[in-house]
Amino acid sequence: MGVAGRLSSNGTADDAESRVHDEHHETLRLWLRLLTCTLTIEGKVRARLRERFATTLPRFDLMAQLERNPRGLKMGELSRRLMVTGGNVTGITDQLVAEGLVRREPIVGDRRAYAVQLTPKGKRAFDAMAAEHERWVEELMSGLTRAERDRLYALLGRLKSTIREHDKEALLKEVRP
Amino acid sequence: MGVAGRLSSNGTADDAESRVHDEHHETLRLWLRLLTCTLTIEGKVRARLRERFATTLPRFDLMAQLERNPRGLKMGELSRRLMVTGGNVTGITDQLVAEGLVRREPIVGDRRAYAVQLTPKGKRAFDAMAAEHERWVEELMSGLTRAERDRLYALLGRLKSTIREHDKEALLKEVRP
Repeated sequence: MGVAGRLSSNGTADDAESRVHDEHHETLRLWLRLLTCTLTIEGKVRARLRERFATTLPRFDLMAQLERNPRGLKMGELSRRLMVTGGNVTGITDQLVAEGLVRREPIVGDRRAYAVQLTPKGKRAFDAMAAEHERWVEELMSGLTRAERDRLYALLGRLKSTIREHDKEALLKEVRP
Repeated sequence: MGVAGRLSSNGTADDAESRVHDEHHETLRLWLRLLTCTLTIEGKVRARLRERFATTLPRFDLMAQLERNPRGLKMGELSRRLMVTGGNVTGITDQLVAEGLVRREPIVGDRRAYAVQLTPKGKRAFDAMAAEHERWVEELMSGLTRAERDRLYALLGRLKSTIREHDKEALLKEVRP
């Protein structure tokens, strides 16, 4: 994810948010604060996955996708679900196969395709990571009161849905300009 | 950035947030909603940079760093400020140099080092992108009322500062266990 200093600033670089000139619009500040919070938490998750499980976020994400699709996913489906391009899905899958965490199963009726699944060993490894992951997130968020977290959750929900509305309007304009 | 489905879910995959089992803790839901909002906005910024300026987010971020450091940055400083590893800072810099947007200047008194700077052409190109970037963000956030944006900004500020407090405590524990 490219991130830092999405806009110019005279301040001392500290995080993405500190990189906004005073005159910049408040929505830009809001966006950079959102980005900073996300990057901070993600950075901590990344560091802990490395320290505690000697693994990476792309590996964890890939295994998370397989965990919720126990019947397996074709490579194309897996790539799409990972939302983010790059990260070399094939390379990571090969690695996980070599470590016995993931397997490739032929798909009945489709000779050329196979489904990627977690092995039982992979499922156990993922469950252990997921449980710790949840505790880390809880710990990081625990400085907010429950009421603050609820308000934040509701406001982010509003943001998410207004962005989707915005998409629909943009689409309608394209269809009937 | 690894992202999607950081946790398992039975729901239909729609975004990161939809991938949480009901029994998962509310803090995890909050984190995934934060992540979803960030990724959604970032994805739109990425797409528009590509469509409007045929450029990428890492290129934009790199130029943003140079814009706010008009005297130039050494490569090591530039990498550090970009916060995110990867993205191949050297490769992107070479590209921008080849396009006349960035130049390498020798540093007086340090024969082996040079500073990377925006050229005037690079500064103009960046300013044009930054102005549009700000409008996109404004547009995306405009579904929220000003009062909602203010509340969201304040709550994210709380989150940011409590995570920093958390870091300090963790550090103290390490120093005097």
